Amino acid sequence: MKIWEKKTNFRFNKEIESFTSSKDSKIDLFLAPHDVIGTIAHVIMLKSIELLNQKDFRILIYELRNIYIYEILKNNFQIEEGIEDVHSQIEFLLTNRLGEVGKKVHSGRSRNDQVLVDLKLFVRTEIKEIVYMTSSFFDLLLKLSEQHKNILMPGYTHYQIAMPSSFGLWFAAYAESLIDDLLLMQTAYRIVNKNPLGSAAGYGSSLPLNRKMTTDLLGFENLNYNVVYAQMGRGKMERIVSESIASLARTLSKMAQDICLYLSQNFDFISFPDHLTTGSSIMPHKKNPDVFEIIRAKCNRITSLPNEISLISSNLCSGYHRDFQIIKERFLPIFEEIKKCFFMFQYMLNHITIKKDILQDEKYKNLFSVEVVNKLVVEKGYSFREAYQKVGLDIQNGSFKPFTKSCYSHEGSIGNLCNLQVKNLMQDVLKEFDFDQIDKVIKRLIYSKIYFDEFSKNPIFV
Amino acid sequence: MKIWEKKTNFRFNKEIESFTSSKDSKIDLFLAPHDVIGTIAHVIMLKSIELLNQKDFRILIYELRNIYIYEILKNNFQIEEGIEDVHSQIEFLLTNRLGEVGKKVHSGRSRNDQVLVDLKLFVRTEIKEIVYMTSSFFDLLLKLSEQHKNILMPGYTHYQIAMPSSFGLWFAAYAESLIDDLLLMQTAYRIVNKNPLGSAAGYGSSLPLNRKMTTDLLGFENLNYNVVYAQMGRGKMERIVSESIASLARTLSKMAQDICLYLSQNFDFISFPDHLTTGSSIMPHKKNPDVFEIIRAKCNRITSLPNEISLISSNLCSGYHRDFQIIKERFLPIFEEIKKCFFMFQYMLNHITIKKDILQDEKYKNLFSVEVVNKLVVEKGYSFREAYQKVGLDIQNGSFKPFTKSCYSHEGSIGNLCNLQVKNLMQDVLKEFDFDQIDKVIKRLIYSKIYFDEFSKNPIFV
Amino acid sequence: MKIWEKKTNFRFNKEIESFTSSKDSKIDLFLAPHDVIGTIAHVIMLKSIELLNQKDFRILIYELRNIYIYEILKNNFQIEEGIEDVHSQIEFLLTNRLGEVGKKVHSGRSRNDQVLVDLKLFVRTEIKEIVYMTSSFFDLLLKLSEQHKNILMPGYTHYQIAMPSSFGLWFAAYAESLIDDLLLMQTAYRIVNKNPLGSAAGYGSSLPLNRKMTTDLLGFENLNYNVVYAQMGRGKMERIVSESIASLARTLSKMAQDICLYLSQNFDFISFPDHLTTGSSIMPHKKNPDVFEIIRAKCNRITSLPNEISLISSNLCSGYHRDFQIIKERFLPIFEEIKKCFFMFQYMLNHITIKKDILQDEKYKNLFSVEVVNKLVVEKGYSFREAYQKVGLDIQNGSFKPFTKSCYSHEGSIGNLCNLQVKNLMQDVLKEFDFDQIDKVIKRLIYSKIYFDEFSKNPIFV
Amino acid sequence: MKIWEKKTNFRFNKEIESFTSSKDSKIDLFLAPHDVIGTIAHVIMLKSIELLNQKDFRILIYELRNIYIYEILKNNFQIEEGIEDVHSQIEFLLTNRLGEVGKKVHSGRSRNDQVLVDLKLFVRTEIKEIVYMTSSFFDLLLKLSEQHKNILMPGYTHYQIAMPSSFGLWFAAYAESLIDDLLLMQTAYRIVNKNPLGSAAGYGSSLPLNRKMTTDLLGFENLNYNVVYAQMGRGKMERIVSESIASLARTLSKMAQDICLYLSQNFDFISFPDHLTTGSSIMPHKKNPDVFEIIRAKCNRITSLPNEISLISSNLCSGYHRDFQIIKERFLPIFEEIKKCFFMFQYMLNHITIKKDILQDEKYKNLFSVEVVNKLVVEKGYSFREAYQKVGLDIQNGSFKPFTKSCYSHEGSIGNLCNLQVKNLMQDVLKEFDFDQIDKVIKRLIYSKIYFDEFSKNPIFV
Repeated sequence: MKIWEKKTNFRFNKEIESFTSSKDSKIDLFLAPHDVIGTIAHVIMLKSIELLNQKDFRILIYELRNIYIYEILKNNFQIEEGIEDVHSQIEFLLTNRLGEVGKKVHSGRSRNDQVLVDLKLFVRTEIKEIVYMTSSFFDLLLKLSEQHKNILMPGYTHYQIAMPSSFGLWFAAYAESLIDDLLLMQTAYRIVNKNPLGSAAGYGSSLPLNRKMTTDLLGFENLNYNVVYAQMGRGKMERIVSESIASLARTLSKMAQDICLYLSQNFDFISFPDHLTTGSSIMPHKKNPDVFEIIRAKCNRITSLPNEISLISSNLCSGYHRDFQIIKERFLPIFEEIKKCFFMFQYMLNHITIKKDILQDEKYKNLFSVEVVNKLVVEKGYSFREAYQKVGLDIQNGSFKPFTKSCYSHEGSIGNLCNLQVKNLMQDVLKEFDFDQIDKVIKRLIYSKIYFDEFSKNPIFV
Repeated sequence: MKIWEKKTNFRFNKEIESFTSSKDSKIDLFLAPHDVIGTIAHVIMLKSIELLNQKDFRILIYELRNIYIYEILKNNFQIEEGIEDVHSQIEFLLTNRLGEVGKKVHSGRSRNDQVLVDLKLFVRTEIKEIVYMTSSFFDLLLKLSEQHKNILMPGYTHYQIAMPSSFGLWFAAYAESLIDDLLLMQTAYRIVNKNPLGSAAGYGSSLPLNRKMTTDLLGFENLNYNVVYAQMGRGKMERIVSESIASLARTLSKMAQDICLYLSQNFDFISFPDHLTTGSSIMPHKKNPDVFEIIRAKCNRITSLPNEISLISSNLCSGYHRDFQIIKERFLPIFEEIKKCFFMFQYMLNHITIKKDILQDEKYKNLFSVEVVNKLVVEKGYSFREAYQKVGLDIQNGSFKPFTKSCYSHEGSIGNLCNLQVKNLMQDVLKEFDFDQIDKVIKRLIYSKIYFDEFSKNPIFV
Repeated sequence: MKIWEKKTNFRFNKEIESFTSSKDSKIDLFLAPHDVIGTIAHVIMLKSIELLNQKDFRILIYELRNIYIYEILKNNFQIEEGIEDVHSQIEFLLTNRLGEVGKKVHSGRSRNDQVLVDLKLFVRTEIKEIVYMTSSFFDLLLKLSEQHKNILMPGYTHYQIAMPSSFGLWFAAYAESLIDDLLLMQTAYRIVNKNPLGSAAGYGSSLPLNRKMTTDLLGFENLNYNVVYAQMGRGKMERIVSESIASLARTLSKMAQDICLYLSQNFDFISFPDHLTTGSSIMPHKKNPDVFEIIRAKCNRITSLPNEISLISSNLCSGYHRDFQIIKERFLPIFEEIKKCFFMFQYMLNHITIKKDILQDEKYKNLFSVEVVNKLVVEKGYSFREAYQKVGLDIQNGSFKPFTKSCYSHEGSIGNLCNLQVKNLMQDVLKEFDFDQIDKVIKRLIYSKIYFDEFSKNPIFV
Repeated sequence: MKIWEKKTNFRFNKEIESFTSSKDSKIDLFLAPHDVIGTIAHVIMLKSIELLNQKDFRILIYELRNIYIYEILKNNFQIEEGIEDVHSQIEFLLTNRLGEVGKKVHSGRSRNDQVLVDLKLFVRTEIKEIVYMTSSFFDLLLKLSEQHKNILMPGYTHYQIAMPSSFGLWFAAYAESLIDDLLLMQTAYRIVNKNPLGSAAGYGSSLPLNRKMTTDLLGFENLNYNVVYAQMGRGKMERIVSESIASLARTLSKMAQDICLYLSQNFDFISFPDHLTTGSSIMPHKKNPDVFEIIRAKCNRITSLPNEISLISSNLCSGYHRDFQIIKERFLPIFEEIKKCFFMFQYMLNHITIKKDILQDEKYKNLFSVEVVNKLVVEKGYSFREAYQKVGLDIQNGSFKPFTKSCYSHEGSIGNLCNLQVKNLMQDVLKEFDFDQIDKVIKRLIYSKIYFDEFSKNPIFV
C-alpha cells in the first residue's frame, strides 16, 4: 500500500516498487524511533492549533507511545512487506488500530519534511554517541602518551629518519587531531540541529502550522526558516555530516597506517598479543595487522562518501528529487561503521606493547645531528648554515658524535608535551555540545503527561 | 641555490629542480607577504630568547619591513630564477643585502613550519575577504527576496510542477543556505587559526623557542601544541578549508543551475540584458547563460578538491612528505576563483529581470490542488486522505477549480518569509569571526616601533 | 575455525573476527560457484604434476562437483557461522566429508590467488550478462529511433532552444553511446581474463605448478605472468571493471536526466502510463518519474566507485594488504545494480509515449533560423556572417519567417540517421567478446569425464 | 571581437569576457596546429561539395598552410588580446589577410564540432607520444629485471615479511602492469579516433556536408555518426582518456611508493646518487626522495581527474553546455604532466643502485618457511596443514632452519620470470596502435599538392 495511491484500478507494478524502494525497508529501521518522536511533536502542535480534537489527540499519543516503547524499543518493530517505508508503516499501524483518525497525523506534513526530521533526529543521537567514543579514545591516547612519554623513537620525514620523536609525542599528536575533528562535528551538529518540519514538500503548507512550537518540542536549536532551503538541506546535510565523520576517519586511518608500518619487521617498534593479529594460510611466521588494515580501509571508504553525495546531487535544480533517497543507503550505516572502528581501535590500543631502546640501533644515530647543529649555533656562535655544513662534513668523514640526551623544552616538543593544555582544549570543545536536550525531548514526548494551557494553547509537560 | 645544498661538488640537476619545484615560484607569490610577517614574528621571538643581539635584530627587522612595504606591496617582488621558493627568496635577499646575519632568521625553523605558517596567514586573510563577499551577496539576495516577495512562481519537485512558490522564497532560500556555509567556514577558520611555528620539521627544535610568544605576535587564537600534529595539519588544513569553500560553491552552483533552467524558453521565468548573455556562432536567436554555466562548472570543480587532497594524502604515514607541496598548486588559486564567482554572480543578479504573471499559464493551475485539499480538511472536516482522493478525481474529471489567493502563514512560507530572522542569524554568525586581529598583526609587526621589556624580555609595540 | 589458525591455545577474539570479516560471508556467496570451478582446475593440475594420487583426485572431484550441482546451484549452500569466507567453507565441507584429503586442495595455493581467481571468474560471467542486456537495450533504442524518426523535437544547447532535432536522433544517440561503453567493457574483460592462479600470496610457490594448464582449464586468454603483478591486479582489476560499468551507467544516467526533464510539464515531450509513475503523498496531480530518478542516482553512485577504490589503495606499497578485502563489499553488488537499471529502463521505454506536433508551439519557431541562414549562404551567396546578421536582425524586427521542412541530408543528421551503420558497429564490438569459453569451462570441469594422457599427463575431457 | 557578436550597439562587458574565457587563450595554444588541420580538411570538403570555388579554395589553403608552417610550427602564433579562442584567432587571421573569404571556413561548422575535432586530433597525437614513452620505460624495466634477476629481496604482504622475492620480479611486475594500462589507452584511442566534424552544435547542418570525406582526410577510423552523440562525447571523451592516463599514473605512483619505502633507512634496499636526492634545510644527513614523492603526488592528482569531470557533467541533460569548456583547463595539461613523470622516472631508474645481500640480515630468515613447508609436503608426504603446523612450532621453539637456495620453477616466479613472454605481450599491444595515420594526415593536408577528381569531386593528393 502506498499512502499516495489513488483509489483506482491501477495496480502498481511490483518490480517498480521493489526497484525504487531498494533497501529502504531495512535502512529505514534506523529511523523508526525518530519517526515516532517527530510524529508526536507534530500531533501536539496540530492539537494546539486545533486541527485535532482532544479525543483524537489522546488516542494518537497513546498509540504512538505504545509503538515506541513496546515495539521499537523492544525490537518488535518491522516494516511489513508491501509497505514502502517507515513513515507509511507507522501510519499504517495507527490506521489499522485506530481507524480513520490514524490518517490525521499526516495533515500539514509531507513525507519530505518527515524524513528530513527523522534523519536529523537520528543524526543528532548518533553524533552524541560518536562524540562520547571520540572523547574516550582521546583519553586513552593521552594516557598512553603520558605512560610512554620517555620512550624515544625516530621521527621521519619523507620516510627518512629525521629527528628524535617519542611515543609520548606520537600518541598525543593523534589526540590533538581529534579536537579539530570534533570542531567540525560540532558545526555539523549545529547545521543538523535546525527544524525542517513544516516545510512539507519544500513549499510549506496552507495550514496555520506553528513551526516554532515543533522546534521547541523537538529540542532543535532553531528553525530552518525558509521552506525551500529546508528541503535544500537534503543532500547538503548528509554531505556536511559525512565530511565531519570523514575527518575523524582520516585521523584513525592515518594512525592505523603508522601502526601497520611500525609492526613491520623493518620497523618493529610495537607489538600486539598473538591472538589480536592474524596468521597466514601459507606462511606460519606471519602476524598480520588485519584489524588496522580493515580500519584503514573502512575509514578511507568513509572518506569517499561526501564525494559520492556530491556526484548524486550535482547540477540538480532546487526542489526535491527522488535521488536523495538513495543517499540514505550509504549514509545511515556509516555511523555504525565509525563507531565500530573506534571500538576496535580502542580495544587494540589497550593491548599495545611499546618496544624500548629502539634508538640503540646504529642506523638511528644521525637523528641527533640537528641537536648538535643547534648546539654549535647557540653555544659556539656558528651561523646555522656553517654549523649545518660542519656537521654534514663530520657525518661524511665518520667523525660525527651524537649526544643522546634530549633537551627539548618548548611547547609541544618531546620534552614538554603540554598534554594538560591539550586536554583542556578538548574539554572546551566537549562543553559546547548540548546533548542534554536530546534526552529531555524523549522524556517529555514519550514519558510525561501532556496538558494544554487554556489561553495560549501551548502544551505543558508534567 | 638551495639553502640545504652542501658545499660540495655536487651539481644539482636542472631537470630535477624544475620538476620538483613545478609551479612553486608562481604559486608562492601568494605567500610572500605572509612569509615576511611570519619571519618578523620569529625574529622578535629569537631576540627575546637572546639568540639574536640588538644590532642584528634591528637590521633584520628594518630590511624585512622594506621588503614588505617597498617590494611586495608595490608588486616589485618576484622569485628569481634558480631560487626554489618564496622562503629561499626572502632569505636570499636578506643575505645578499645584510651578509651572514641574514641566515640567522632560519635558526629554530624548518621550511616545513615556515610554509605552514605562511599558508595559515594567507588562508586567514582570504577567508576574511570571502566572508565579506558572502555577506554582501547575502544582503543582495535578501533585498531581491523582499523586492519580489509577491511574485509567484511554480515550485517543483522531481522537475514536476508541485506547489506555489515565489521569487521571495527562492532568493531567500539561497541566502539562508549561505549561513550554514559560513558556519563551516568559521570552523575552518578556527582550525586554521592555530600556530604551527616552532614545530620545525615536525619534531620541534632543541632551541628554547617561545611558541606562546609567536602565537600572540601572529594573532593566532592558540597553538597547535603537539609538533607532530602541527605537521599533520598539512593536507588536513587544506582539505577542511576547501570543504568549507566547496560548501559555498555548491550553493552558488545550485542557484546557477536554477537560473540556467529558468532562462530556458521552456521556463522563461527570468531574463538578463542582452549584453550579459552570449550569442552562438551559428544560431542568431540564442542568448546563452554562459556566465552561470561557468560559475556552475567552476564551483563543481572546487567541489572536487577535497577528494583530490585525500587521494594525495591517503595512506601516507605521519611526518612530512613532499607530496603535500603539490596540494598548493590547486589549493592556493581557489580563493581567487570563488571570489570571482561571487563577484560575477552579484554583478549578474543586479541586472536580473523577473517575469510577472508566470502563473497565468494554464499548465500551472494544478499548483493549487494542495491548498484545496487542505481547505477541505480544515473547513469541511475531511480526512486528508479523503480530501486528497476527491481532488485527485476532480482533476481527472476536469472538474477541479483552483483558487489562486495564497494564504500561507507559517514561518518560512511564501506568506511569511521571516527574512528578518534569517538576517539576524547571519549577523550572529558574522559576529563570531574576529577579523580585527588580522589588521592588528600587520600594524604591529610592520608599522610599529618595537621595544623589549627589560625583565620579561617581552616585546612592546608603540 | 580459521584455516591458518595454529594448533595452540590462542582463542581468537570473536569481536575481531566479526569486525574483520564484516560482510564477507554474505558477499562471498557471489563467489561460491566460481570457487569450486577454480578449485577443480587446481586439483586437475595437482594430479597432472603428481602431487595428488588417482584415488584422492577422484574423490575430491566427485565431492566438489556435488557441492556445485546439489548445493550451490540448488541454493543449498551457505557460509556457516564461524567460517571466515567462501574458500574456508568449501575446504571445510571437503575435510568434513572426506577427511585429511580435503586439505590437499590448498597445496600450492594461497587464499590470495584463490580469491583473485574467483573474482575474475565471477566478473567474466557478469560481464557476459551485462553485455547481453546492453545489446538488448541497444536494439530497443534503435527500434524506437526508427519508429519515431519523423517526430521532430527541439534540440537544446545551454538549455536554450537551438536547432531542430528528432526522437529518431535522440534515441539513436544513446544507442551509439553504448557502443563506446562496450569498447571499454571489452578491455576490462581482456584485463580480467588472465589467470592469476599460482601467484599464491603474490610471490609464487616452490611447488612445480603448471600455470599454463590451469589457464587453459579455466578458459583464460592468457596468464598474469609475473606473480607480483598478478597480486597487484587486486584493486586495479576492480577499478578498471567499475570504470567500464560506470561508463554504461553514465549513459543511462544522462538519458534518465533527459527523460525527467522531458516529463516536466514545462517540456511535456513524452509520457508514461500512470501505473509506471509515482504519486505524491500530498499533491494529487503529481506523476513523478521516480524510476528514472532512482536510475539516475544509482548510476551516479556507481560512478563514484572507481574513486572509492583509488582512495582505498592509494599510496599502498606493492604486496597484498587486507584493505583490498573491503573493496569486495561495494564491488560485487554493482553488477546486480547495473543489471536492474537496464531491466527497469528497458521496461519503461517499452511503454513510452512520444508527443507529436511538439514543434507547433510558438516558442520553437526560432529553431529554424539556422536553416534560413544556411539557405542564404548556399542559394544567395551571402557569407555566413552576413546571413547570420541578417537573420538576427529579422528576428529582432519580427520579420523572420521559419520554413519548417527539414532538409538535413548528411550522415547522422535528422534526415539521415545511419542507424544501419551504427547497428553494424555494435555487431563488430559484440563479435569480439568470446563468451562461449565460459560455458565450455563449466561443461568440462563439472559435467565431463576426465582422463589423463599417459605420457604428457595432460587431462582429456570426454 | 566575438565571432557570434551581432552588429549592434551592445558592448560586451570586459569582466564577463575575461571570466568566461578564463585560461582559454593559453590553454588553447595546445590546439592551434590541430585547428588548422581540421579547418583544411573542412575546406577541402566544402570545395568538393561546391560550396567554395576554386579561387577561394586556393587562397584559403595557401594561407592556412602558412599559418601552420610559419607561425605555429615556429612558435610565432599567439591568441591576441580580445580574441576569444584559438578558432576565432585563426578565422581572424584569415579574414584580416584575405578579406570576406576568410569567413567562409565557418560554413557548416559550429565551434562545438570544431573544438571537438581539435581535441581529438590533439589527444591522438599525445597518446602516440605517451605510448612511445611507456614502451621505452617498459624496456628499461625489463632490462633492469634481467640485470638484477638473481638479487633476492623480501616479499611483503600486510607490510610483513612474507616470502622471497627478487629485484627481477619486482621490476618486471611494473613492466607487466604497463601492458594492461596500454590496453586501456588503446580503447581510449579508438573512442577518440572517430570524427565528430559535421555535428555542428550537436544537431548537424542543413548543408549537404560530406562527413565521410572529412573522416578520411583526417585519418579517423570512423565517424561519430549520430550528431547528438558526437556532441555527447564532450566530457565523456575526456573522462575516458583521463582514466587511461590515470591507469598509467597509478602504476607509476605505486612504484614510486615502493621506492620511497625501499630508500628508507629501515629498508635500505636501493640507493641513488646524492645529486639525485634532496637534502633538508635543517638535517644534514637527509637524502630525500623528492622526485619520487612528486611523481607519486602528481600521479595521484591525475587519478582525481575522471571524478572531477564526472562532477562537472553529472546530471546535465544532453546538448552542449558551456561547462565542458572548463574541463579543458585541467585536461589539456595532464599529457605534459604524465610525460614528465615518465621522463623523470626513467632518468632516475637509469641511476638506481641495488643493494646485494639484503637477505643476509637475520630478520629475513623466516622468509623461507614456506619453502620448507612445501618440501615436507612434496618429499615427505605431509599434508599441507600438518607441515604448516610443524614449521610453525619449529619457529616457535627456535629449531627452524631455513635453506636459502631458491627452487621456484613455475611461470612468473623468481626462478622463471617469463620476461620474454611479457615482452611479446607488449609487442602485440603496440602493434594494434596505428599511429602512421597521424603523420600521413599532416603530410597530405599540409605538404601535398591537392587536385580534385573531375567526376567524383574527390580530392587527390600528390
